[in-house]
Amino acid sequence: MSDAETSLDAAIAARLKRTPDGLVAAIVQEHGTGEVLMLAWMDEEALHRTLTTGKATYWSRSRREYWVKGATSGHTQRVRTVALDCDGDALLLTVEQTGAACHTGTHTCFTDELSVFTDELSVEGQ
Amino acid sequence: MSDAETSLDAAIAARLKRTPDGLVAAIVQEHGTGEVLMLAWMDEEALHRTLTTGKATYWSRSRREYWVKGATSGHTQRVRTVALDCDGDALLLTVEQTGAACHTGTHTCFTDELSVFTDELSVEGQ
Repeated sequence: MSDAETSLDAAIAARLKRTPDGLVAAIVQEHGTGEVLMLAWMDEEALHRTLTTGKATYWSRSRREYWVKGATSGHTQRVRTVALDCDGDALLLTVEQTGAACHTGTHTCFTDELSVFTDELSVEGQ
Repeated sequence: MSDAETSLDAAIAARLKRTPDGLVAAIVQEHGTGEVLMLAWMDEEALHRTLTTGKATYWSRSRREYWVKGATSGHTQRVRTVALDCDGDALLLTVEQTGAACHTGTHTCFTDELSVFTDELSVEGQ
């Protein structure tokens, strides 16, 4: 991106700790239910756009472009809060989700449950 | 790590999509409250150890070593569920958290709230 496009507050930018490809992880949690819907990625510009428009905007690692969530599907995310974590490598967004958060059509992207060992029968899966 | 140390189920390993430094993001959510506590990182071995012991185990990008959450602080995480997301680059753990999840002493790492523009009068989705 050009310098002209990047306008995230410098004080916020200075607190970000990026992956080797320049991104921070953005956890998306549904307002009201508390359900974790998805994880996406942001660079400085995506965070800037999200904070200034209230519309969740991410960086697509596969397509290498910005995407406003729901721009094509209609499954938008209206952002209520954004919080940065203690070491600056993750963001937590709370959103009002319209429709399915996952591109597969499910409400959340986390539908593939793995088996966890536990020695207490009472805490097994369900 | 050596081959002998890596023993994650091959079918799970094949579904993981890693960052350039070989990691997947692990979102940690508190069982019961639904609060998102922290984000950490796992490689295959960290995931294997987590699934087989029920104790949340991560890869420290800064120290370049595995760490069992709470091993020194006592602030352990007993893992109840682990789910992989649709594209394999993120995990969602639900845990029973003992003490503070954050090394700063706060219950969650996401205490630094950023300002979000919101136009409450606008009609979303237009």
